[in-house]
Parts: sequence; C-alpha cells; structure tokens
Amino acid sequence: MESYEQRVRQSFSSQEMMKTLGAEMSEVRSGATEIRFPYAASLTQQHGYVHAGAVTSILDSACGYAALTLAPAGSEVLSVEFKVNLLAPGVGESFVARAQVKRAGKTITVCAGDAFAVRPEGEKLIATMLATMIYVPAE
Amino acid sequence: MESYEQRVRQSFSSQEMMKTLGAEMSEVRSGATEIRFPYAASLTQQHGYVHAGAVTSILDSACGYAALTLAPAGSEVLSVEFKVNLLAPGVGESFVARAQVKRAGKTITVCAGDAFAVRPEGEKLIATMLATMIYVPAE
Amino acid sequence: MESYEQRVRQSFSSQEMMKTLGAEMSEVRSGATEIRFPYAASLTQQHGYVHAGAVTSILDSACGYAALTLAPAGSEVLSVEFKVNLLAPGVGESFVARAQVKRAGKTITVCAGDAFAVRPEGEKLIATMLATMIYVPAE
Amino acid sequence: MESYEQRVRQSFSSQEMMKTLGAEMSEVRSGATEIRFPYAASLTQQHGYVHAGAVTSILDSACGYAALTLAPAGSEVLSVEFKVNLLAPGVGESFVARAQVKRAGKTITVCAGDAFAVRPEGEKLIATMLATMIYVPAE
Repeated sequence: MESYEQRVRQSFSSQEMMKTLGAEMSEVRSGATEIRFPYAASLTQQHGYVHAGAVTSILDSACGYAALTLAPAGSEVLSVEFKVNLLAPGVGESFVARAQVKRAGKTITVCAGDAFAVRPEGEKLIATMLATMIYVPAE
Repeated sequence: MESYEQRVRQSFSSQEMMKTLGAEMSEVRSGATEIRFPYAASLTQQHGYVHAGAVTSILDSACGYAALTLAPAGSEVLSVEFKVNLLAPGVGESFVARAQVKRAGKTITVCAGDAFAVRPEGEKLIATMLATMIYVPAE
Repeated sequence: MESYEQRVRQSFSSQEMMKTLGAEMSEVRSGATEIRFPYAASLTQQHGYVHAGAVTSILDSACGYAALTLAPAGSEVLSVEFKVNLLAPGVGESFVARAQVKRAGKTITVCAGDAFAVRPEGEKLIATMLATMIYVPAE
Repeated sequence: MESYEQRVRQSFSSQEMMKTLGAEMSEVRSGATEIRFPYAASLTQQHGYVHAGAVTSILDSACGYAALTLAPAGSEVLSVEFKVNLLAPGVGESFVARAQVKRAGKTITVCAGDAFAVRPEGEKLIATMLATMIYVPAE
C-alpha cells in the first residue's frame, strides 16, 4: 500500500518546473510539506532578488502537496486559486516554503504557506500564501 | 528623455527569471503589457501541463510592468500581493499574459491580468490575476 | 419551469442581510447580476464612508447569483473564497455591484465584480472582487 | 498621551456598521484585536446562516485595528485589499474574529485573521482572511 509520502514524493519528482528551480522536497508530514531551493541567478528579477514567481511556485507546490497528503484514495489535487503577499525582498542563500492544511474537506481543502529566505543571521519571512485546492479523480 | 517603453523593456531584459522561462515582452502600451513564452518541458508539473508558477510569473511581471508604464518619475514598482485563479490546464504551444492597470494611484496601483494558452484552435483563458503594486523611490 | 431569474430573485429575497443593507437586485441576466443599496449612516466606518464590509456583501451576493444563473439543475451556489481590492472611499448617494461569470465550470465557477459609488458627477469605481463559487446539490 | 488601545476603541465606537452588526471589540493587544457579534436573523443569507459579508466585515475591521495598534504617530489605516476563504457555514450563537499583524511595515502592514462560530460544543473555524493595510496621514 502506497503511503501518502510516497505519493507526494513521486509526484514531486515528476514536476520538471521544480528541477528548473533546483527545488527539493525537504519534508513531508500528514497535512504539511516543505520545499527548498538554493539561490540561483537564473531565478532573479531586475534587482537581482529572487523573482516572486519562483517563490510562488514552491509555495503553490507545497500547498498542493500538503493537501495531497490528506487526499481521499484515488484522488489528486489541483490548484483552484491562491493569493500571495510579498513581505520582503527575495534575498538569501536559499529559500524554503512551508505549507500546512488549514481546513481539509471532501472536495475543497484550504492551505496556508509561508516562504522564508535563509540568511546568515537566520530565516526571514518573505511571502505568505493562502490557497484553495480541489480533489479530483486521478487521471 | 527616457520613454516608459524604454524603462519597461530595459527592466524586463534584466529579469533573469524571464529568460529561464523563455519569455519575451511582446507588447508595451500606456497602462498595459503583454508577455509570452513557448511551451517547454522544463516548466511542467506532474501531468505535463505548464506549472501554475510559470504562468503566475509572467502574470506578475506583466502586471508590474503595466503599473510601471504609469509610474511617477524616479519611482519603481514592487508587487505587494496578487491573487490568481487557475481556470484551465496549462496546455498549449505557447502562453501569453496580458495585464492592464485597473486603477492607478500615487502610491498603490491595482492591475488585472489574464493568461491564455495558445492552441491550434485559438486562445484559451487559463488563469486570471488581480494584483496590488506599490510605487517606491528607485534604488 | 422555473427560470434562472426566478431562482435568483427568490433566493435574494430570502437574504435578510440584503434587507439590512437596504439592497435590491436591480438586474439579472444570464451570467450576470447587479445589486444596489442607497447610502445609510448605519453602514459607515469611522470616517463616515460606507464600510468595506457592506460593499463586499453586495459584491459577494452579486457574484454568487451570477454563478447561480448558470447553475446545473438541482444545484445551488456557495462562496468558496473571494478577494476584494478597495480602490476609492465609499462616498456616494448609492452603491452598485455588477458581477459576471468569468469562467463557468461543472463544479467551480469564477466570477468578477466591480462596485461603484453613484455620485452627482457619475459612477466611481470603488472596489473590485475576484471570487470562486462552488455548485453543490441543493439542500 | 493616547494609548493605542484608546485610539482603537475610539475609532471602533464610531463605526456605525459595527453597531448594525451588533459587534463589540472584545480584545485589543499590541498587534492583535478581537471582535464579536451575536447571531441575528437580520444578518443571514438564504439558508439562515450568517452572511459571508457580515463575517468579512468583522474580519476586515479586526485586521485594520490590529494594524492600527502598530501605526506610526499621526497615521491611520486603510484597507488596500483582503482575501477571505469561507470554511464552514455561519451557524452559531455568536461569531468572533481574531486578527494579528503578520508583518508590520512603515507603509504596508499585512494581517491575518480567523473567524469562528461559537457553538455549544465549542468554537468552529468558519473563515480566514489575509489582508493588506496601508498607513496614511490622519485626516
């Protein structure tokens, strides 16, 4: 029997976008996941900070996989929508998104995620997401 | 005197993230921009569709640059927050984000953007963004 | 056979919150609705402007009923989530929310709505909503 | 010298909308507030549940006043935008919104709030808000 961690890690490993970001899934628990990527010049915006789109990508994936850990058998997860607040510049050696399920439902599951820049002095909160996920029958 | 189009195109060309996505700025007008990228396997999620994060990246940049076309002299634009609804799978030969200023202010400017997949039968709306931008003194 | 307009107007008339706001449904079309209320001191915030919550209430109802006009038989509509940008103070003789379906689905329907203050010199855009609605079997 | 609690309570007491909802400010701390209202038939939607607009109103006010507790002298707070997820029906004897500052800035402050229905068996999370507030010079 496949565990939720296996499902999540297998799906994550097939997201080519995560490879493009250099991202790895650093933690999977029931209702929560964590995704990280190191700073790369290829992911920056005009000031040399990491682009909001890169941070949003790992927040979205982290939220989606947090929902997947609680998915009914035979279901998969699609993102319905998300909102992101950008709180500080994307300056750091690496970036980590931590997401957890806020309310699990049969069809709709709502997740929250925070993204942090890892800096020499510690982690700095740089973005926060509130996301709506839907369970659909697996293709 | 630098035109807004020059400002926008110069800033866009320094966003390394856009190069990673293969994106180009296909149109700049007062209060509106358009950004495109072709399908690439490197940008996909687990089903082979383009990742929501890639689509969000061009929507965010398109919204930010739409705001920049109306920015006061000496100002630049930061994303405060955005919300994205995913409306259809990211399946297409290329993807285009079109953004326009919804309400321009002295400090806060609100933009709306739609993203389309370009398919043989025509364009398909796949995502929509509502974004809040802030003008700050240029660094 | 009940028309969608009958369904919408019957449901609207049973929303006591709309009576508290003094709101009326001024238009119902396929995929679109319009709701209005006059200025009332009972709906103001600390500056005497109409409270964002009152404007949000008619935007939410207008979006929900726009979705209801396209609902499958035997279904009703619940709000999953919405985002509102406040664009100008709630100053006017009356307030009107106009919503339309942006993308209709079998389960999830996304709606957009704008709210305007009606002033002697004309209508002023004061808020905009992007909302996610879900169809559920009628109770 | 006026304390932040005095500022908040004085402003709250001049929000007529809060009286219409029967709302009271039940707690004010640095960076956090709590607002409550009892169930009233006048605040319901078509199923007899409390309308999302009523819940959103106290979430918005709670977020704004949480930001106000940290406002620079001579500043006041305006809502730029908010997103609300509705998580469960508005069924309860009373309703409470608790908001806290997520990230305080000089101009922009981001707040998060949760709303609960108070039921005989305990509190039930029914909605969650992520909101962007701006400090502006007091009128």
